[in-house]
Amino acid sequence: MLLIADNLTVTNKAVQRAVVEKNPEPIRELVKNCVAAGAQAIDINPGPLGRNPESTMTFLVDVLQGVTNLPVLIDTPNPVVIEAALRCCKGKVIINGFSLEPAKLEAVLPLAKEYNTDIIGYLLRPDGHVPADAEERLQIAFSVYEAICTAGLDRERLIIDPVVVPVTWQNGNVHNRAVLSVIRQLPDILAFPVRTIVGLSNLTAAEAPREKKLLIESAYVCMLAEAGLSMVLMNVLHKESVQAAKACRSFLDSRIFVWEEI
Amino acid sequence: MLLIADNLTVTNKAVQRAVVEKNPEPIRELVKNCVAAGAQAIDINPGPLGRNPESTMTFLVDVLQGVTNLPVLIDTPNPVVIEAALRCCKGKVIINGFSLEPAKLEAVLPLAKEYNTDIIGYLLRPDGHVPADAEERLQIAFSVYEAICTAGLDRERLIIDPVVVPVTWQNGNVHNRAVLSVIRQLPDILAFPVRTIVGLSNLTAAEAPREKKLLIESAYVCMLAEAGLSMVLMNVLHKESVQAAKACRSFLDSRIFVWEEI
Repeated sequence: MLLIADNLTVTNKAVQRAVVEKNPEPIRELVKNCVAAGAQAIDINPGPLGRNPESTMTFLVDVLQGVTNLPVLIDTPNPVVIEAALRCCKGKVIINGFSLEPAKLEAVLPLAKEYNTDIIGYLLRPDGHVPADAEERLQIAFSVYEAICTAGLDRERLIIDPVVVPVTWQNGNVHNRAVLSVIRQLPDILAFPVRTIVGLSNLTAAEAPREKKLLIESAYVCMLAEAGLSMVLMNVLHKESVQAAKACRSFLDSRIFVWEEI
Repeated sequence: MLLIADNLTVTNKAVQRAVVEKNPEPIRELVKNCVAAGAQAIDINPGPLGRNPESTMTFLVDVLQGVTNLPVLIDTPNPVVIEAALRCCKGKVIINGFSLEPAKLEAVLPLAKEYNTDIIGYLLRPDGHVPADAEERLQIAFSVYEAICTAGLDRERLIIDPVVVPVTWQNGNVHNRAVLSVIRQLPDILAFPVRTIVGLSNLTAAEAPREKKLLIESAYVCMLAEAGLSMVLMNVLHKESVQAAKACRSFLDSRIFVWEEI
């Protein structure tokens, strides 16, 4: 299970200020901290973009690439901004992502084909809503898979995100159990070892004591690991959650267990 | 996933001393602490028994029952001691347990039948060794199931323990991944919702920093929960591991999530 930092987002006020002021230093610092914490890829979320959306994105990509050559996730629905990022990314890139919304299918999938990148497909209804249950998620996974094939992409380019919801949703547990079940079933259902990803921070997107959020996040990330999740997009500066994820890896790893790595 | 205390064991020196001195107070205190920590049943492990094995066991059962009416697990291979405990247990009892060793099959299973109790069956070879892989564990599960039926017990009385091994065994990860896989597969393989249990403390039965042991224990208990484990025998005074187990329950529970229960 790869750990991907979701920290480089303009919902982080320090990042937002750095973007406005075009000041690379706070962003460099943040990226360094993420790498030190164990991030194996970095998601760039430029948020709702202002007047010069492309320049905001390329600024973030350039600063990031000045610090690390880890893979980059381009986390925006705007195809113009995606392409601007793709043009300046030097290393491995994942487009994050597309759903069955017709506009996204038309505009985003061809970019993954043209630039030969991995791409994340969300298990959401065409209207953007969360599916009712595991079965509907699996049906949508089929449509997402078909869309990839129709666009002429190799199926190995697809990474599926079954969409974790906040625990505080009235039926949050039902959804988040469906997410675990879908992760387990997808490789059988699609008949190839499809990779999966979730956005862990969405789980605790509500007011609650930090300690409880970390406890919930740590427990769920271990359950995701056991279900077979390939990569987890998370706040890698949540030390407890990262420790839990790494402890799970020590079980799932084919190498011999060593206490020193815990 | 039920939490069962493994704390009442004579490998605990305070318990050992209390047993030698026939002093009920330290045992009462320990049991109260286990109940307060969230134990839903208590395992009594009288260890290698001395001159009066039956009186040691009945002493422990009597003191325990003076504090709580939670279910009791009778954790000894000695059939005479098991029967002594069965005679003085007033509430729900689980015999812990039997394996395919011929002597155990002959002496222990009839007691479960006579006293109409649940019984734990270990997935061990007839010579007491740990099976090589998940497949061999499943074959042994069949034999354990057949033994239960042959003894005239209802199959619902069976609880299967696929035997967690220390992480420090050279192939510990292979075994402990097999344990997860077996827990997931058993209900399908045996074609009824068979219950499962593991002894979590065995995982970290080695010298290592306490903090790392707790981290490993917490991560693995969440993975066990996701795999569908019914009950976990653990040190319920390991606060971090119990918190992790309870956090998993909050996801698996059919009730609505509430932060107050975390």
